[in-house]
Amino acid sequence: MRGVVMYAAGDVRVEDRDKPTIEKPTDAIIKSAASCVCGSDLWPYRGVDEVKGPSPMGHEYVGWVDEVGSEVKNVKPGDFVVGSFFASDNTCEICEAGFQSRCIVGEFACPTGAQSEYLRVPLADGTLVKTPGEPTPDLIPSVLAASDVLGTGWFGAVAAQAGPGKTVAVVGDGAVGLLAILAAKQLGAERIIAMSRHESRQKLALEFGATDIVEERGDEGVAKVKDLTNGYGAHSVVEAVGTQQSMLQAIQATRPGGHVGYVGVSHDVELPGQALFFAEVNLLGGPAPVRRFLPDLLDRIYRREIDPGKVFDLTLPLEQAAEAYKAMDERRAIKALLQP
Amino acid sequence: MRGVVMYAAGDVRVEDRDKPTIEKPTDAIIKSAASCVCGSDLWPYRGVDEVKGPSPMGHEYVGWVDEVGSEVKNVKPGDFVVGSFFASDNTCEICEAGFQSRCIVGEFACPTGAQSEYLRVPLADGTLVKTPGEPTPDLIPSVLAASDVLGTGWFGAVAAQAGPGKTVAVVGDGAVGLLAILAAKQLGAERIIAMSRHESRQKLALEFGATDIVEERGDEGVAKVKDLTNGYGAHSVVEAVGTQQSMLQAIQATRPGGHVGYVGVSHDVELPGQALFFAEVNLLGGPAPVRRFLPDLLDRIYRREIDPGKVFDLTLPLEQAAEAYKAMDERRAIKALLQP
Repeated sequence: MRGVVMYAAGDVRVEDRDKPTIEKPTDAIIKSAASCVCGSDLWPYRGVDEVKGPSPMGHEYVGWVDEVGSEVKNVKPGDFVVGSFFASDNTCEICEAGFQSRCIVGEFACPTGAQSEYLRVPLADGTLVKTPGEPTPDLIPSVLAASDVLGTGWFGAVAAQAGPGKTVAVVGDGAVGLLAILAAKQLGAERIIAMSRHESRQKLALEFGATDIVEERGDEGVAKVKDLTNGYGAHSVVEAVGTQQSMLQAIQATRPGGHVGYVGVSHDVELPGQALFFAEVNLLGGPAPVRRFLPDLLDRIYRREIDPGKVFDLTLPLEQAAEAYKAMDERRAIKALLQP
Repeated sequence: MRGVVMYAAGDVRVEDRDKPTIEKPTDAIIKSAASCVCGSDLWPYRGVDEVKGPSPMGHEYVGWVDEVGSEVKNVKPGDFVVGSFFASDNTCEICEAGFQSRCIVGEFACPTGAQSEYLRVPLADGTLVKTPGEPTPDLIPSVLAASDVLGTGWFGAVAAQAGPGKTVAVVGDGAVGLLAILAAKQLGAERIIAMSRHESRQKLALEFGATDIVEERGDEGVAKVKDLTNGYGAHSVVEAVGTQQSMLQAIQATRPGGHVGYVGVSHDVELPGQALFFAEVNLLGGPAPVRRFLPDLLDRIYRREIDPGKVFDLTLPLEQAAEAYKAMDERRAIKALLQP
């Protein structure tokens, strides 16, 4: 089969690889209907994260069950499924509390890479969710988005307690930030401030439900959010970047007693204790427990209430994965879908 | 009048000072019935925080209203009152959300110092709470505790979402940590782990409701808490110290999706972003919004359901304030009450 392998920063290749096989009785093999490139794939692509030898890439997937291990009961070959980037048993106390991304026996869901024709998914019963019927082709981007970026943006909005009567600010205008806007809107937020300085992204932000755009960053961005909220700050702020600047911007733009949901994968962040202490905000974040939200998100997608697939503004054949990475790196594309 | 002034680290004196007067129409003057030394007073005493010239000390108070400004409506001379260490209008959006410690027009409640015969309290209407009748002398220590350490321990337990079915761990065995144990018990926690290595404090911890004692600190302490919770970690952890070690200990002892309430005044804390990201715990802390809890706490004290005054294991006349500081610094006393 064909699959994407990253050899070094900037060096992405599509190669012939062995088709993955069942290794544990709880595994499933998925035949991919679509995959995509994640903002977090750009960290190694840009050399910020080290690439330790050739690495199969991708952790977002949607497709047909091809084969299951002997202990798998909830899905069978032929089922159309989507799953989180993190595999979970969905039965431990942590999963039951809704934090499947930290399942006590959990592991990465795509050890063989998802940017490929087939992939192996561990803990299939807890991880995979059957879609309500096979999606029509126009729904596939949205179902694929549920696998990570939609679920992650949604978690950010939930962690920030976006809801009726709330003013929500979103720091970061990548796919996750944009989908946090969509989530905040769905959750009933009264006002949604998109912090973005890119025109095409601002446009999608407004389409997804943003009511205000703030182009300023850092202290100026914080001051602007305070101006828009009678000096109090936003009730809810979603951080969807993962840098020290964006994290402090999120914390400082939140009113005391408000909530920050941080979903940008943390890179250079060191939170100063005193600033945090006197900010007196609720913080919750980390890898999104996408599995918690999947059934609800699929319902909303199939009822065509939301169209998160709009974040894919570039669709390429899997063979052109290198160009997909390049377009995202150069910010020519928000998010690239790969068709196997 | 007589009052405590700190001149430098280790140099605490009781002096003749001017009786404070009404400066703003929202001020009140309180005639002190009792005051005390706070763990946070030890930071400058030990030279960790700088002493910038002679400083009137103390921020915990209970007593009679002596005089009020022209705009004060809720209390009148002769009322017996208690208030938080932070003055708040109790009407702004932040106060209404229960975060009076970050009131939009708030300020320090004891600019003239509370370890004295009289003190001036700003924003009297929002800050002071009349007690349900003048307390009998045996109740005064408990009412005084409500002014800060009880309210702070209570906030820690509430922020950590201590409650029925929960395992709560408390890092720190000072007065605040001990009262967080009392709070967790009152809030219905199933199991309460006191992290303490001092025998006298362990004894009070057990009296206040602790079910387990863990003497280990750092990674060993975390491992012990995990051992006691089937490997998951505590649902709720209260951090009541304010150091990097205690903060990381609290975060790591909490299960994913659990809650950390941090009330130790942050000193050397720098939270590493990645550790925080992958811990995936809820964080809330800062200066306690004591005002939120005062009416409820006073009810519990007057009904004699709780006896937080037990944290005072040393009572001295105001004139011996220097010895009170010394006893707490040398850990001969948990907390010292000063009688004017």
